[in-house]
Amino acid sequence: MTTRFLRTRKKSKGLPPGSIIAHPKTEHNVTIEMINYTANEISQKVINSIDECLDDVKNTDTITWINIRGLSDGKIIQEIGETFGIHALWLEDVLNTDHRPKLEELDDIIFCIIKAVDYNKRIPKYVSFEQISLFLGNHFVISFQEHPEDVYKPVVNRLKKKKGRIRESRADYLFYALVDSIVDEYYIVLEGLGSEIEKLEETIFENFDGNIYKEISRLRNELIYLRKSASPIRDVLNQCIKTEKPEVQNKTKKYFKDAYDHIVQCVDTIDSYSQMLDSARDAFSSMQSNKMNEVMKVLTIFAAIFIPLTFIAGIYGMNFEHMPELKWPWGYAFAWVLMISVGIGLALYFKIKKWI
Amino acid sequence: MTTRFLRTRKKSKGLPPGSIIAHPKTEHNVTIEMINYTANEISQKVINSIDECLDDVKNTDTITWINIRGLSDGKIIQEIGETFGIHALWLEDVLNTDHRPKLEELDDIIFCIIKAVDYNKRIPKYVSFEQISLFLGNHFVISFQEHPEDVYKPVVNRLKKKKGRIRESRADYLFYALVDSIVDEYYIVLEGLGSEIEKLEETIFENFDGNIYKEISRLRNELIYLRKSASPIRDVLNQCIKTEKPEVQNKTKKYFKDAYDHIVQCVDTIDSYSQMLDSARDAFSSMQSNKMNEVMKVLTIFAAIFIPLTFIAGIYGMNFEHMPELKWPWGYAFAWVLMISVGIGLALYFKIKKWI
Amino acid sequence: MTTRFLRTRKKSKGLPPGSIIAHPKTEHNVTIEMINYTANEISQKVINSIDECLDDVKNTDTITWINIRGLSDGKIIQEIGETFGIHALWLEDVLNTDHRPKLEELDDIIFCIIKAVDYNKRIPKYVSFEQISLFLGNHFVISFQEHPEDVYKPVVNRLKKKKGRIRESRADYLFYALVDSIVDEYYIVLEGLGSEIEKLEETIFENFDGNIYKEISRLRNELIYLRKSASPIRDVLNQCIKTEKPEVQNKTKKYFKDAYDHIVQCVDTIDSYSQMLDSARDAFSSMQSNKMNEVMKVLTIFAAIFIPLTFIAGIYGMNFEHMPELKWPWGYAFAWVLMISVGIGLALYFKIKKWI
Amino acid sequence: MTTRFLRTRKKSKGLPPGSIIAHPKTEHNVTIEMINYTANEISQKVINSIDECLDDVKNTDTITWINIRGLSDGKIIQEIGETFGIHALWLEDVLNTDHRPKLEELDDIIFCIIKAVDYNKRIPKYVSFEQISLFLGNHFVISFQEHPEDVYKPVVNRLKKKKGRIRESRADYLFYALVDSIVDEYYIVLEGLGSEIEKLEETIFENFDGNIYKEISRLRNELIYLRKSASPIRDVLNQCIKTEKPEVQNKTKKYFKDAYDHIVQCVDTIDSYSQMLDSARDAFSSMQSNKMNEVMKVLTIFAAIFIPLTFIAGIYGMNFEHMPELKWPWGYAFAWVLMISVGIGLALYFKIKKWI
Amino acid sequence: MTTRFLRTRKKSKGLPPGSIIAHPKTEHNVTIEMINYTANEISQKVINSIDECLDDVKNTDTITWINIRGLSDGKIIQEIGETFGIHALWLEDVLNTDHRPKLEELDDIIFCIIKAVDYNKRIPKYVSFEQISLFLGNHFVISFQEHPEDVYKPVVNRLKKKKGRIRESRADYLFYALVDSIVDEYYIVLEGLGSEIEKLEETIFENFDGNIYKEISRLRNELIYLRKSASPIRDVLNQCIKTEKPEVQNKTKKYFKDAYDHIVQCVDTIDSYSQMLDSARDAFSSMQSNKMNEVMKVLTIFAAIFIPLTFIAGIYGMNFEHMPELKWPWGYAFAWVLMISVGIGLALYFKIKKWI
Repeated sequence: MTTRFLRTRKKSKGLPPGSIIAHPKTEHNVTIEMINYTANEISQKVINSIDECLDDVKNTDTITWINIRGLSDGKIIQEIGETFGIHALWLEDVLNTDHRPKLEELDDIIFCIIKAVDYNKRIPKYVSFEQISLFLGNHFVISFQEHPEDVYKPVVNRLKKKKGRIRESRADYLFYALVDSIVDEYYIVLEGLGSEIEKLEETIFENFDGNIYKEISRLRNELIYLRKSASPIRDVLNQCIKTEKPEVQNKTKKYFKDAYDHIVQCVDTIDSYSQMLDSARDAFSSMQSNKMNEVMKVLTIFAAIFIPLTFIAGIYGMNFEHMPELKWPWGYAFAWVLMISVGIGLALYFKIKKWI
Repeated sequence: MTTRFLRTRKKSKGLPPGSIIAHPKTEHNVTIEMINYTANEISQKVINSIDECLDDVKNTDTITWINIRGLSDGKIIQEIGETFGIHALWLEDVLNTDHRPKLEELDDIIFCIIKAVDYNKRIPKYVSFEQISLFLGNHFVISFQEHPEDVYKPVVNRLKKKKGRIRESRADYLFYALVDSIVDEYYIVLEGLGSEIEKLEETIFENFDGNIYKEISRLRNELIYLRKSASPIRDVLNQCIKTEKPEVQNKTKKYFKDAYDHIVQCVDTIDSYSQMLDSARDAFSSMQSNKMNEVMKVLTIFAAIFIPLTFIAGIYGMNFEHMPELKWPWGYAFAWVLMISVGIGLALYFKIKKWI
Repeated sequence: MTTRFLRTRKKSKGLPPGSIIAHPKTEHNVTIEMINYTANEISQKVINSIDECLDDVKNTDTITWINIRGLSDGKIIQEIGETFGIHALWLEDVLNTDHRPKLEELDDIIFCIIKAVDYNKRIPKYVSFEQISLFLGNHFVISFQEHPEDVYKPVVNRLKKKKGRIRESRADYLFYALVDSIVDEYYIVLEGLGSEIEKLEETIFENFDGNIYKEISRLRNELIYLRKSASPIRDVLNQCIKTEKPEVQNKTKKYFKDAYDHIVQCVDTIDSYSQMLDSARDAFSSMQSNKMNEVMKVLTIFAAIFIPLTFIAGIYGMNFEHMPELKWPWGYAFAWVLMISVGIGLALYFKIKKWI
Repeated sequence: MTTRFLRTRKKSKGLPPGSIIAHPKTEHNVTIEMINYTANEISQKVINSIDECLDDVKNTDTITWINIRGLSDGKIIQEIGETFGIHALWLEDVLNTDHRPKLEELDDIIFCIIKAVDYNKRIPKYVSFEQISLFLGNHFVISFQEHPEDVYKPVVNRLKKKKGRIRESRADYLFYALVDSIVDEYYIVLEGLGSEIEKLEETIFENFDGNIYKEISRLRNELIYLRKSASPIRDVLNQCIKTEKPEVQNKTKKYFKDAYDHIVQCVDTIDSYSQMLDSARDAFSSMQSNKMNEVMKVLTIFAAIFIPLTFIAGIYGMNFEHMPELKWPWGYAFAWVLMISVGIGLALYFKIKKWI
Repeated sequence: MTTRFLRTRKKSKGLPPGSIIAHPKTEHNVTIEMINYTANEISQKVINSIDECLDDVKNTDTITWINIRGLSDGKIIQEIGETFGIHALWLEDVLNTDHRPKLEELDDIIFCIIKAVDYNKRIPKYVSFEQISLFLGNHFVISFQEHPEDVYKPVVNRLKKKKGRIRESRADYLFYALVDSIVDEYYIVLEGLGSEIEKLEETIFENFDGNIYKEISRLRNELIYLRKSASPIRDVLNQCIKTEKPEVQNKTKKYFKDAYDHIVQCVDTIDSYSQMLDSARDAFSSMQSNKMNEVMKVLTIFAAIFIPLTFIAGIYGMNFEHMPELKWPWGYAFAWVLMISVGIGLALYFKIKKWI
C-alpha cells in the first residue's frame, strides 16, 4: 500500500539532486500536443519528438503551447528541458508528483506546480489529484500533466474559436487561462462535497445510523486533502500578481487577481465546511447518545415497576404453613389490588419526578 | 439542491473570463432607479434604459445615483458598463452572486462587492444574503442588488429630506451612506441572533429537550455564514480608509472609519457568540448526561434492593419436603422480618456509600 | 429582553450619522462636575450648564476637568461639543454605549472610549460594564460616564490632597490617571473571578453537584465578556504610547506604558483562567461519569450475582410430580449449599476479572 | 484565600503611581549582600545599609553586585533607588510581585523583571514562582528577590573561583549570568514535570484509577502557570539581543542568544507537554469508558441469559390443576433440557452477533 | 528514567557557559573520518587525531570534510575547535544533544544543528533522533553525529563516483548535500508513519479493539516529536537561502530552496496526519460507544419483554386457596395465551417505537 500524501523518494536516494527519472507510476503512453497560434492563424498537431517542431518553437512571433500528458518517458522530458533551457532541478520537480504547489522564477522562465482535482470521477467518493507543471516563457507555455485525460478542453476551444481575448494576448494570458481552468475544477469539487455535506446535515436529526460517522470522517478527510492543495495555490497566484518579470504583463495581472479571489473563496469555503462538519459530528454524537439514553431510561423504569410486583407474587408463592392471607376468601383479589396499587403508585411517582 | 456557499460556475466554463451572462436565479424584473441631485435640487425617476438619462449622467455638476434591482437582464448591465467605462471582469463579478466581498480600484472607478443580510425575513430563522455591487466614480454611484426589495430607504429619505450632510457632500459620501446602511443590517441580524442565543442560554439549565441540539447547531451555522460575509467587509472598509484615490475625500474617511468600527464590533460579537454557543453546548451535553445518569442510578439501586428480596421469597417458594422454616408457626412473620431487614440494610448501605 | 452584547441602533436608522440623541437607557439625572486646578490652586463645583464656567474653561493657564455623569440630556452634550469643538460623530459615539474601546486623534483633541467594569456589585455575580468616553485637549479633560456612581474618587482625592505629581503635571497626566483608575478596576474584578475559579477547582474533585456546570458556564461567559472589553483597551493604551500629538508629553508615556503592562497582564490572566476553566470542566465531566459508571458497575454486578440464585430457587419451586431432589432429606440444605457456592463462585470470578 | 495569578492592588489604590510600599507578604528579614570585583580582586560582604559601601559603589573601576533578598523593607529599596538614580515607577514594579516579565531601558540603566521557578520544593508538587528584578548599570548590577533562599550560588562560585570569563567581563556579563541561572531553573522544573508526565503516560493504559484525572489536571495547570512566566522571558531576552544601549556589549549578546535559545526550547517543550497531556486525557477517558462498557455488556448478557431460564422455572411453578407436563414422568428432566437448550442457544446467538 | 524531550543540564550547572564536557550518554568510541577532494582527486582516511591531517586541512585548494561519529571524547572536540577557530559556546551546543535546530553565522563559519530521524529502526515503533552539528567554512565542512551509524552513505558514494555536480562544487554544496540527506530521512519516516495511519483508518470502522486508542495515542505522540524537530529545520533552511555570507554561493541557494520545499511539505504532512488522527480518534470513540449502546439497548429490551412474563408466571404460582383460574380446565392454556400475547404485544410496541 502506498500512502496518499507522500510517496517514497527512496529510489532516487543516492542519486544527486536534478537526476531525471521517468515516473514509474504512470504506465500509459506519453502524448505530446503542440498548438501554435497568432491572432490570425492556429495550428494543432500531435508530435512524437520535440525535433518535429523546432521551427515553430524558435519562431518568436507565434505563441507555442506544448502539452505533455503522462510522465513515463524521461527522454522526452530531458529533450524539452534542453530545448527550452529549463534547469535540471525543475525537471526533477516535474517528475516528483508529490510536490507542493509553488511558483519559481529564473532568468526568463516562470515555473509553477499546481494540483488539478476531481471528485467522484477517477475513484468514486474520493478527491483525487493530478500534478500540473507549467512553464511560462516569453513566447511559449509548456504544460505537463500526470494522466492522459484532457483537462484543458475549454481553453483549446476558446483558442480555436477565437473567443475572448485569448488569441490577441501573449503567452502570459494563455498561462493564466490554464491556471484558471484548474482553479475552476476546485469550485466543481467543492460543490460536489458541499451538496453532500448539506444533505448530511439535514439527515442527522432524523436518522440515527452509525454509518454517518464513517461518512463525516470521509468528508472531513477529503476536505483536509483539498485544503492541502488549494491553500498553496493561493500563494502561487499571489506571486503571479506580485511578480515583476516582464513575461507577465500588467494587464494580465488583473486576471490573476480574479483567479486569486476564486481560490481564496474556495479556501474560505473549505474552512467553513470543516467547521460545519465538526459541529455536525458533535451535534449528532450528542443527540444520538441522548436518544439512546431516553430509550434506556424508559426501559429501566419499565423494569423498575415490574420488579416489586414480581416480588409480591413471590411472597404469596411461598409455602409457609401459616400464611393467613392465603386462607382469606378475598386473598387473591387483595393481592391483585395490592399489585395494581403499587404499580400505579410507582408510575405516578416516576411521572412526578419527571423521569417519564 | 444547490449548496448554500458556492453555486456552480459550470455554465460559464468554456467561456472566456469577462463574459456577461444574466443571472439565471433572479427571475423577477429588473428595475432601474435614478436619483440626480445637487445641494439644491433633486430628481428621482424609474427608467427602462440608460439612454433615457444620458444627459443627467454626463452632467458632472450633479451627482447621479443609479440603483439596479435584479440581475436578470444582461443587456442593461452591459449597457451601463459601456456608458461608465467599467471593466468586463467587474461586470462578470456583479453577476457572479457568490463573490467574496472585496474592493478594487482602477483608473477613476472604485468597485466594491459586499453582502446585505437579513434574518428571519426572507426565510424564517435563516440568515439570507444578497450581493450588493457598488461603483463609485467621480460624480456617480452605481449600485446593483440581487433582489427587488428596497434596502436603501433610509438613505433615499435623507437625500430627499436634505437631512445631514448628504446633499452637500460629493459622491463618496453617498457611497459611504449606502455601505453604512448595509452594515447597519448586520447589527439588526446580530441582535436577532443574540436574543435567541441568550434565551437559549437561560433555558438549557431548566429544560432537557433534545431539540436544543438542533437549535444550537442551527444558530452555530448561521454565525458561520454571517462571519463569512462580515469578515471581508472589514477589509473592504479598511481599504476605503487607506485608499489614495481622489474620489474618496479625506473628510469622508472619518465616516468610513466609523463604519469600520461598527463592522469590527460585529465580527467581535459573532466570535463571542460562537464561543458562548460552544460552551453552552458542552454544558448542556454534560448536564444532560449527568441528569440522565442520576435517574439511571436511582432506578438501578431500586432494582438492586428488590432483587435479594425476591430471592428470599423464591427460597420459601421451593417445594422441598423437609424445609423446617415452613413448619414454624412464625415462619411467615420471620420471612417478612428477614426481607424488611435486608431491604433497609441495603438502602442504608447505599446511603452510606452516598449512592443515593 | 435586550441582548447583552449589542443594543439595537434601529431607532437611529434613517438618521444621518452624527445625530445626537440622548441615551434612552439612562433615566437618572445628569450631573456635571468641574474641577479647575493649577499646581497651587484647586476649585471644584457642580454646574448645570457649561455657560456657568466658560471663563474657567477659556483660561489656558489652569487645567479643567469636566466630568459628566449620565447621558440622558442630549442638549448638554451638544453644548459641550460646541464649546470644545468636538466632532459630531464623536458625540454620537459617546451616546452609543455599545461602542468598542478605541482611541482617535483629530486636530488638537484626543478621544478615547474605554469600558469600566465591576463585578458582583450592580448585579450579583455578574460583570457589568459602563462606557467611559474621555476627551483630552491641551488644557482640559472631559469625561462622560453612563451611570451616576463616582468612579474617579481616588483621582479626585489625589488632586485635592496634592498627592504625587498630578497637580504639577499637564492635562495628559490627568487623562492617564483617569484611564489608570479604570484599568485598576479590571484587577479587582479579575481577583474576584479568580478566587471563585480557584475555589471551584478545589471543590470539583470532592463534590459532584451538577450545578458546577452552571457555575463554570457562568464564569466562562463572564470571562468572554471581560476579555471583549479588556483586549481593545490594550490597543488604546498602545496608541497612547505611540502617539506623536504634542498633547501627550513624552514623560507621561512612561506612565501609559505602566498602564499598558497592567492591562496586558489582565488579558493574559483572563486567557489563563479560561484555559483553566475549560480543563476543569473536562476533568469534572470525565471524573463524574467515571464515578457514576463505578456505581452502576457495582450495582450491576450485585444483580448479576443474585439472578442465578433466584433461578435456582425457581427450579425448586416447580411443581413437577417427579423431582427427586425434593424428596431428599437433605434437599433443602443441598439447595442452600448450591446457591451459596454459586454466589461465592461468581463473586470470586468477578473479583479475579478485576470487575469489583 | 489569595488567588494565584493576581494579587489585589487595592491597598495602593488612591495612591499615586510610583508610591513605594513594602511588600506585605514577605515577613522575613531583608538581607543585602554586596560583591565588588575586578579581574584580580573580589570582596563580599553583608551590609545593613547602602551607606556602608558608598565608596565601592562609586568606584567605576570595580564591578558592584548588590543582591537584596526580601522585599519587606521599603526604606532600603528607596535608598537604593536614590543612590543609583532609579525611577520611582520601577521601584513600585519591584514591589508589585505579580508583575509580568519585561525589560525596559531608560537613560543608562536597563531594568528587567523575570520569574524564578521551582517545582516540588517550596510547596510539594507545585510550581512556585519568585519575582526577580534586575538593574544593569554601567558598572553595577542590582538584583532583588522575594524570598531569602540563595538562587545565585553557581554564579557566586564562578565569581569567587574565577571560573570562565566572568571576572574579566563587564557588568553586562554578570547580568547575563544571573539571567541564565534563572533560565536554567526552568530546565530543571520541566525535567521534573516531564518525568511525571511520561510516567503518567505509561500508566494510563494499565491503571484505571480515577485519580489520574486529578493528576492530569494538576500537571496541566502547572504547565499553564509555567508557560505564563516562561513566554514573556523570551521577549525579555530578545530585547537583550536587540538593544543598542552601550551597557550591553556586542560580545555579550552571543551569550544572551544562547539563553534565548534555551528559553525558546523550554516554551516549545511546555507546548508539546500540554498537547501530550490533552491527548493522554482524551485517550484515558475513551479507554476507561470503553473498559467500563465492556464490563457492563458482559454482565448484561449474563442477566439476559438467566432471565428466560427463570421464566421457564416460573412457568412450572404455577399451580394450575391441569398442567400435563407436571404429570409426565420425565417432566422434570424435560424442563432441565429445555432450560439448558435455551441457555446455550442464547449464548451462541450472542456469540454469533459478536456481543461476547 | 530520563525524559524524552529534555535532559538535565544539572551537571553543567555551576560551570560557566562554553565549558566542554564530553557527552556521557554516548559510550561507543569516537570515529573521525576525513575526506579530502578536488574535482579530480579524492582521498578518504580514518584518523585518530586532527594532527594527522593538518596539511590537508590547511590546503585551501582541496575541500575537506571531517565527520566525527560519537561525542564521548571531549579532547578531540576541543582540538577541532581550536584548529578551525570555532567558538566555545558552539562546541558546548554540539555536546548538548537536546539543542533545538538552529543556524548561526559568525565570521567565516556557519554553524547549524539539525536532527536526523529514524523510525522503527533503533527502537521499534518509535521515532528516534540524533543530533547532527555541521560547520561550514570556506573550504571545509565538519560534521558531528551522536551515534556510530553512517548516515551519509549516499553522499560519500556520490563523492567517490563523481556523480552529479558535487565534486565540481565548493564546500557549500557538500554542506547542502549533507543537510539534504538528513531531510530525506524525514520523508522515509513520514512514509512509515503514514502507512500505519492509513492502515489504522481503514480498520477503525471494522474492528472495535480498545488497543486502537493506545495505537492512536502512540502515533499522535510520534508526530508531536517529529514536528518538534522538523519545524525548526524549516527556519534553518530559510536562513541558508537568505544568508549573505560568501561561503554560501548563489547557485547553491537554489538547492537549499529545494530542500526547504521538501521540509515544508513534511511539516504540512505532519499537520494533516495529526488532524486525521484526531478525527479518527473522535470517529472511533463515537462509533464504539454507539455500537456498545446498540448492544445494551437490545439486551435491555430483551429483559423488558421477559420481566412481565415472569410476573404472570409468578401470579399463578401464588398459593391462595381461592384462585378461580387455577381450577379452570383451560387455565394453563389461558396463561400461555396471555403470556404470549403480552410478549408479542411488547415486542410490537418496541418495534413501532423504533427501539429495535
